[in-house]
Order: sequence, then C-alpha cells, then structure tokens
Amino acid sequence: MQIWRINVNTQTLVKESVPTSWEELGGRALLARIMLDEVEPLCEPLGPKNKLIFAPGLLVGHMLSSTDRISIGAKSPLTGGIKEANAGGRTGFHMASMGIKALIIEGMPAAPGLFCLHLSLAETGAVWESASNLTGLGVYETAKVLVQKYGDKVAMAMIGPGGEMKLSSAGIQNIDKDRIPSRIAARGGLGAVMATKGLKALIFDHTGGQKPPIQDVESFKIAQKDYTTQLLAHPQTALYRDYGTQAMPRMADGFGALPTRNFSSGHFEDVDSISGETMRDLLIARAGESNPTHACMAGCTIRCSNIFGGEDGKTIVSPLEYETVGLMGSNLGISSLDDIGRMNWQVNDLGLDSIEIGAALGVACEAGLMKFGDAARALELIDEIRRNTPLGRILGMGASTTGKVLGVERVPATKGQAMSAYEPRAIKGTGVTFATTPQGADHTCGLTIRARVNHTDPRGQAAVSLPAQLNMAGYDSLGACIFAGFGFAAAPTAIPQLIKARYGWEVPANYLQELGRQTIKMEREWNRRAGFTKKDDRLPEWMTREPLPPLNTVFDVSEEDLDTIFDNL
Amino acid sequence: MQIWRINVNTQTLVKESVPTSWEELGGRALLARIMLDEVEPLCEPLGPKNKLIFAPGLLVGHMLSSTDRISIGAKSPLTGGIKEANAGGRTGFHMASMGIKALIIEGMPAAPGLFCLHLSLAETGAVWESASNLTGLGVYETAKVLVQKYGDKVAMAMIGPGGEMKLSSAGIQNIDKDRIPSRIAARGGLGAVMATKGLKALIFDHTGGQKPPIQDVESFKIAQKDYTTQLLAHPQTALYRDYGTQAMPRMADGFGALPTRNFSSGHFEDVDSISGETMRDLLIARAGESNPTHACMAGCTIRCSNIFGGEDGKTIVSPLEYETVGLMGSNLGISSLDDIGRMNWQVNDLGLDSIEIGAALGVACEAGLMKFGDAARALELIDEIRRNTPLGRILGMGASTTGKVLGVERVPATKGQAMSAYEPRAIKGTGVTFATTPQGADHTCGLTIRARVNHTDPRGQAAVSLPAQLNMAGYDSLGACIFAGFGFAAAPTAIPQLIKARYGWEVPANYLQELGRQTIKMEREWNRRAGFTKKDDRLPEWMTREPLPPLNTVFDVSEEDLDTIFDNL
Repeated sequence: MQIWRINVNTQTLVKESVPTSWEELGGRALLARIMLDEVEPLCEPLGPKNKLIFAPGLLVGHMLSSTDRISIGAKSPLTGGIKEANAGGRTGFHMASMGIKALIIEGMPAAPGLFCLHLSLAETGAVWESASNLTGLGVYETAKVLVQKYGDKVAMAMIGPGGEMKLSSAGIQNIDKDRIPSRIAARGGLGAVMATKGLKALIFDHTGGQKPPIQDVESFKIAQKDYTTQLLAHPQTALYRDYGTQAMPRMADGFGALPTRNFSSGHFEDVDSISGETMRDLLIARAGESNPTHACMAGCTIRCSNIFGGEDGKTIVSPLEYETVGLMGSNLGISSLDDIGRMNWQVNDLGLDSIEIGAALGVACEAGLMKFGDAARALELIDEIRRNTPLGRILGMGASTTGKVLGVERVPATKGQAMSAYEPRAIKGTGVTFATTPQGADHTCGLTIRARVNHTDPRGQAAVSLPAQLNMAGYDSLGACIFAGFGFAAAPTAIPQLIKARYGWEVPANYLQELGRQTIKMEREWNRRAGFTKKDDRLPEWMTREPLPPLNTVFDVSEEDLDTIFDNL
Repeated sequence: MQIWRINVNTQTLVKESVPTSWEELGGRALLARIMLDEVEPLCEPLGPKNKLIFAPGLLVGHMLSSTDRISIGAKSPLTGGIKEANAGGRTGFHMASMGIKALIIEGMPAAPGLFCLHLSLAETGAVWESASNLTGLGVYETAKVLVQKYGDKVAMAMIGPGGEMKLSSAGIQNIDKDRIPSRIAARGGLGAVMATKGLKALIFDHTGGQKPPIQDVESFKIAQKDYTTQLLAHPQTALYRDYGTQAMPRMADGFGALPTRNFSSGHFEDVDSISGETMRDLLIARAGESNPTHACMAGCTIRCSNIFGGEDGKTIVSPLEYETVGLMGSNLGISSLDDIGRMNWQVNDLGLDSIEIGAALGVACEAGLMKFGDAARALELIDEIRRNTPLGRILGMGASTTGKVLGVERVPATKGQAMSAYEPRAIKGTGVTFATTPQGADHTCGLTIRARVNHTDPRGQAAVSLPAQLNMAGYDSLGACIFAGFGFAAAPTAIPQLIKARYGWEVPANYLQELGRQTIKMEREWNRRAGFTKKDDRLPEWMTREPLPPLNTVFDVSEEDLDTIFDNL
C-alpha cells in the first residue's frame, strides 16, 4: 500500500511509502493520525493549510459484507474540529484495489476553476481535466456525464453546487454499485473543503489493480464465514433488509425520542405515515422502480438501502433513510414520504447533508420563515440554497449558523453540527455521545437506544455512551458499516482473526475497542490543539432547561460525567 | 455606594451593600469581578443566565475632564467572551450621583414585550413602563419621546431596532449633554443582551442625588488642577479639539495603515477627501448647525466631538469619528464625508456599531454584493438591516458572520469582533493588541501607533502592546477617556492623589498599570472558563499570508510572543 499525495497548486502526484506509525491504522484512525502529523489545528478550514484526506478502512477491499467504506476527513468548516465522514459505495473498494492506503490532497489551486482529477495505475497517475462543463451541475447529472466519459468501471467522489458554494453543510457524494452518486460522506462540510482544492470530482480507475494481499487466505475465509453467518442469522439483519434504517421512526417515537417540530417534542402524531412499515407497503404496492431492499456496496448481505419510487413508478430518491425522514419529516412536521423524498432528492443533488439542512429548516420554522408541515415552502427554501441567495447561504451553512443569524436559541447542535434523529433528552446516553464525541453531534458516533437501560435516568449514561463510541470509532477504522456490528458482536473472534489473516498482526481480543480508543484519543488531542475545551462537550443550554414532551425530561447528565468520560483513554 | 440588582423576571429592584472584594474596583475592573463572581462563563449570551451590568469608573461623578464614562458589560453574543464597552454621555455621572456603584440586570422576562425602566432615588426605586409605543423606533426618535416624557434632567441608555432584532453588532446608546443618543457602548452586541432583558431604555433620574463624597476635597482639587493643566498644555489636546479623532486618517495613511477596500491596502488614494483637515474646513465653511468642536460629557476640556452638518446647514450626524470614517470610508472605497455621515446616521439610529457594520460591508463588497465606492448601495444594504431581511441579519451579525455565511475568508476580525481602523500588518504592536486583548479586536484596548518604534518590525511588539493594554484597562476602570491619558501621563502623581483624596486609599505610583493588570487577569480567567485558548489570540490566517500594500508586510509577530505576552500578569 502507498500514500498518494496530491498537490493541487502544482497539480502533481507523489506516491510515498507508508510511514511506520501509519501502517497499522486505516479509515478514521488513520485520518486522525495524519491530521495530527500534518494539519495545523489552528488553520483556516477553507485555506491552503487544510488537507482533504481519503482513507479506506483496514478491512476494505475484500467485499466483506458491509465493510468497504471510505473515510474522508479534514478540518471541518462546520465544527472547526477534526472531521471524519464515511460512506458506502465504491470509493473505498477501488482505492484499496489501487493499493492506496490514503490519498492526501493539499495546497490551494493557483487559479480559480474546477477540475476532475483522474487517478489511475497508469504511468500518468494523476490527470487534471477541466470541469468547466460540470460547474454548477447537480451530482445526479454530473455522475451521468462522468460515467459517459470515464466508463462504468471506475469509482467516483464528487461535490454538488453546495460544495462549490463552499457551504458548511456540503458533503462528498460517492457513486454506488449502480453508478448513482447516493453515498454521501455528508457531515461537517467536507464538500466545501474539496471545492477549495479546486476539485469537482475524483475518478478512481482501478484498472490493473487487484484485491489487497491476504497473508492467510484460509483463515480469512473462515473468519469471514463466521461473521457472515452470524450477521445473516441476526434478527436485526432481516429487519434492516426489510425496513432499512426506516425501522427507526416507530421505535424512536415509542421512546419519546423522535425529533418533532424543531426538537420541541419527542412524539410525532403522524409517525405512522412516515414509518418504515408504511414505506415498505407503499414501495411494494407501487412497484415500478421502487424497491424496499437495495445494496449500496457490492457484496453487502444486509442491503438496508432502498429505491423510493412515486405513484408513477419512477424513482423519487434513493435511498430514503431514517435520519432524513426524522430531520425533514417529523422535525418539520411533514408527514408525506413523497414530500420528504422530493426534498431529499434536491438536497442530495446539491450535494448537501440532509440532516444538517433538515435541522436548519427546523430552525427556520422557529424563525417564522416557514410553517411546520409546509413541504412546498420547504422546497422553496431549498431552492434558495440552489439559487445561492443570502437566505439560501444562511440555511446552507447549517443549523447553528441559521440559529445565530436568525436569532433562534433553540438550535439542536453540538460543536456546531446538527443532531441526527435521536432526541438526547429522551435517550440520554446518546445525548452524552452527541455532547462529547470529537465529531460533533452524530448518530454514527455511538448510539445507545438499544442499550437495556432506563434512557431517561441521567446517571450512568456516560458508561453506556463510552463503549458505543469506542466501538463506532473502531468500526469506522475498519471500514465496517454500523450494521456490520450485528454480525461482529455475535462473532467476537472474527475481527482479530480477519486482521491476523489479512496483515499477520497479532491483535488482542478487545482490538475493536482498542482501535476506537486510540482513534478518539488522537481526535481529542487534535481538537485540544484546535482550541476545543470542555465548553465544546456540552449540549445546548436550552436542552438543560426546556422539558421535552411527552416524557417531560430535560438533559440533566452531570457536567462531571461529560468532563470525565474519556479520562481513562 | 450601593449595588442595584434588577430582576427582569419578577420586575423587582434590590439594593445591596457593596461586597468587600468589589469595593476598590470600578468600571471595567468591576465588571470583570462581577462576571467572575456571578455569570456562568458557558452560559448562552442571549439566555437567562447572562447578566447586563452597568458600572461607572472609579473617578466618575466629579466632572473631572474626560472622566465620567460608563462601562457596560456582559457575556458577548459577538465574541462569546467577556465584554466591556464604555461610552461618554451622562449615564456614568448620573449613576454616580445616585450612589450606584453597579447596576446588575438579570433573569429573563416572563412574557415578551419591551419596557422602559425608570430608576430613581424615590421610594418606588424602579418602575417598569411599557415601551410598546417605542418598539421598532430608531434611537433618535426614541430619545425625543423619552425626553418629552421624563424631562431633560435625566440620563438615558437605550437600544435601537438593531438591538431589538438581537443583532450581534447592536450597542447601547447613551444620551450626551445635549440629550442626543450619540454615545454608544458600541462593541460586542450588548444591545442584543439588553433586548433579551426586555428593556428598550433605562432612565436614570438622579433627583435628590449628589456628587459622590470626597474624603479630602483640597487634595482632590490640587490633583485635578495638576491633571487639567497638563491636559490643556498638551499639544495633542489642541489637535483633538480642532480635529477630534479625525486627526487620524492622514497619520494612519502615512504609516500605510489606513484600512482600505476591506483591508486589502493600507493606503487610500482619496485620504485627503476624508481627512480631519478637510472636514474641519468644511464644517467651518458650512456653519449652520455644524461645529468642529463639541463636548460629549459635561466638563470635558478636550471636546473632541463634532457636529457634522450638510450644505443646507442641518446636522447630518454627530459626531463623525475616525473609526467610522476608516471603516465606512476608506474601507469601502467611499471618499465623500457626506455619504459616510449619512451612513453613520442610519447605523446610529439602528443602534449598531459603525465599526462592525463598516467591516461587514467591506466583506460584503468582497462577496460581490456591493462595489467598493458605491455609497448608494451601502445605504441600501444598511436598509436591509432595518427591514430585518435575511441579508440584513447577516450583515447585522457582524463581519465574521458575514464572511462565514457569504464564503469570504478575508475578514478583518479577532475573537469574532471586527478590527477598528488600524491595519495590524502595518502597525504590528496594535496587531498584538487586536490578537491578544480579551475583548476582541478594538482600538480602545491598546493602540501603539504613537510609540516610537519601527511598527513593521515583528520583534518586540508584544512589549509595546502590553503597557498600552494595561493603561487602557486602567483608564477604563477609572472612567477616563482614552484622551485623558495625555493629561494623566504628564501629571504622573495625579491618579494616585485623586484616588487617595476621593477614597482615602493609599495606592502605589504605578496604580494605573496595577489596576489594568488586575482587570486583564480577571478577564482572561473568565475567558479561559468560557473556553478561550491560544487559538483565540491570533489574527486571521490570511493576514499572516497576504502582504499589505504599500509596505507589503504580513503580520509576522511570533506565536510565542502572542502566547507569552500576559505571562507575568
């Protein structure tokens, strides 16, 4: 494996050997190490000193079910802290096949203008081609043009108009196995960072590449089978195949934790209209292009994704997921999945994070710019973003900036990043995660809703959040999807065995947690150098003051618990 | 002297004796102490835990020339740090006459709606009267209505529409000796804090009050005479009487330090059109209401203020000062004093900080929303603020938010607060002040332009900035204007003697610096608890990278100098 280093100022690629201290890291862990080693924590996120880094997880490249994810990182223009956002699709697999352990994009272009950067194993290596024909184009159209030009064997990562506008809610879209740019490394504004590097798209052409070497193929296969068997046997896998993440609305609502009308309630009276059960029935009935089950990565056995089609059988958006339904549905008082799907498509096409935009629209409702439930107005507001108006820019900068500019205190965010669809006053362990994760509020940093605890008891929640955070940081470093955990948890020796077989490393039984521990420790150190203090490990003050119906709880986990959660890392 | 504590939730006033540890403090120093003792550093600035505090300086109440200033403080919604903004006018004098050492306004109103709070020595003490007739009214009209209602013997502090909109650039306007609301505690968004306390105006009725007691009247008079004589004899006093702060444009331009076109140059080709010399000639020629010399506080011998009248003899604005001319003139490429005066009036009437708005407009130029030099467009943009449009709110939130939302990196600000009219790449000692003062970039925190050093040498500038910062923190705690320093510096025993005569305290010869030292130490401690780190003690990265014409210098004072400047406080 090699490090590929791109300088966008000189438009050059240098291939480097992997430094010793980076060798045993991948994905999120490797990003943290590279950030510590190379990115000045006080740098301007959209300036020349920031770096955009792509790193597949340690187990990527073998079509291990749900384990080919790509981690993308930089200093976040949204949070000002370290950022890792990961996604499915093809990018991780292709990079691994090309032998790229990490791609580091640095510098600032000498002149304005966007490029497509074609990376391959050919002697040319890196080729910059003008993207002037793609400038301002949405990601769906962009992907079509690129597939036409570069063929359907490549992987691609691209930004939409939102990234070009340097909006802090802009992500990086990766094409999936069907060449649709639907797998977004959504959070933290990485799309804006990519724009400052002068890149509209990255093309990964793995022609001539091969799967990463495996030291002990037999042992790898045994562990893989163990893991896959457990994954397939797990009841949640069937549930996620049928409903995907959309299994959540009813569950969250049942806990009084479904964000509703800008996080003013944990119960949505129309939850049934937006539930996975309703959605599945609808998609089966509508048929046509609709499909309640779809895989985002080749080889995935869960296939939690879906194709959400309309009455006419045509695709409205793919996939439609719980976080979007929570933030753009109940959080906005909108109960039509078709409406939510259409909003989702627009936001995707702009290359924006649907969680951040959903939360920003919720804040805009509070400011009187839209009535809760008014999907037509929501689409108008999204169009303000597309038209790059001042109001559109406010919303595109995310929920925190929207609240600040519009004078709304009730903003559901930590470290400047909007919360995903779990009300932290009702699921307090997840509140601890939202408050303390180095990444800013995010559901993929350690959910606790499945823990068998009293979620409204403020005591002991740090102890529930911590292992969840370590697990997720570990999975993010392996390239494993959050749902792979159902299999790995039931096959506890699989991960150490896979690592041993793949790399020859002897790792401890608690390797996953250990990898997570290292990762979070590095991330916190980087954030510390970037000026983060315990003030950044807090939920917003109003959540400690305003009781949340229907349980009427406030967030009352002690500050001591928040401040000491990582003491023994 | 007493502490008057107002609870806006219960609409009650409690008069308290002064805690021992507060006794020997006043103005900015006392604010810092009260903030440390009573305001949670992590609180939401616009929430119920923040407090708005008024404290006259230690020497206020005796019509000592240029020494009746009022310090106003809170946690700043602009910087997130501790904030003191002071102003001339009548408020300080009246509070001292009423025996109020500090007025602490706390809590959050039980219901929406604005009030005027009438404070007096009558038994009623504090009377809330509905301000529904004043809601949305500019400060000029508001002051007229209030003078009609409460008479012309009172002092008043009020907010304009900008404060009501909770904009982070909103200040608090105090009436001057002519009952014009022209003395603004401008910086840091204190007007927004006042709005959250449900207050449109504070009326200080000192009927029945008296000058604060003096322990040794004779000694006080001798020191006062010494100070006044030196002040009057100082060549700068005559200069400031003739030109006021407008003595600066040519001087700053001569140093290559006049902010021009959003801080992209330190030289303005039209500097002569906006200079104090031109302005004085114009005002003398125009006559009518124009006056190049005017006192903001009764008894001031400098009288640096002015009344800027138009060709028709009518007042355009009063006063027109250097910081406004720098930020709304050269910084916007606007060379007509009449245009600048008209913009200034609008911004004053809205109750906003003209420095912050001038800087925000400069950033808006960079974003393409206005052409440099287009005063008509600048007035339109200011009108967007008045109309509370999304674009207006962006601008009203200040330069940093404007840059963030509009995607402009070249923002002249530190700790989120816009720089005043001294280019820190050309006057590097002032750059150190801008970077390290706990208040955020501000000219009244320690200018160094008069120091006899090479201003472009990065070495030794911390040693130039530090004593200037300590002096200013000392003056701000005494209630002395920055220009009083000309007199006090030439009468070095006057301050200790005045303090001894007034209070009976034996203070050291270096009392001014000592008071400043204590103040800054407390402020830094408060900011530390609010999560500030060395990242907040930096100029923006682009100023370390982009050379400033005509001297072509970058800001290159070492980070070590910035990080160690306060090591021996």
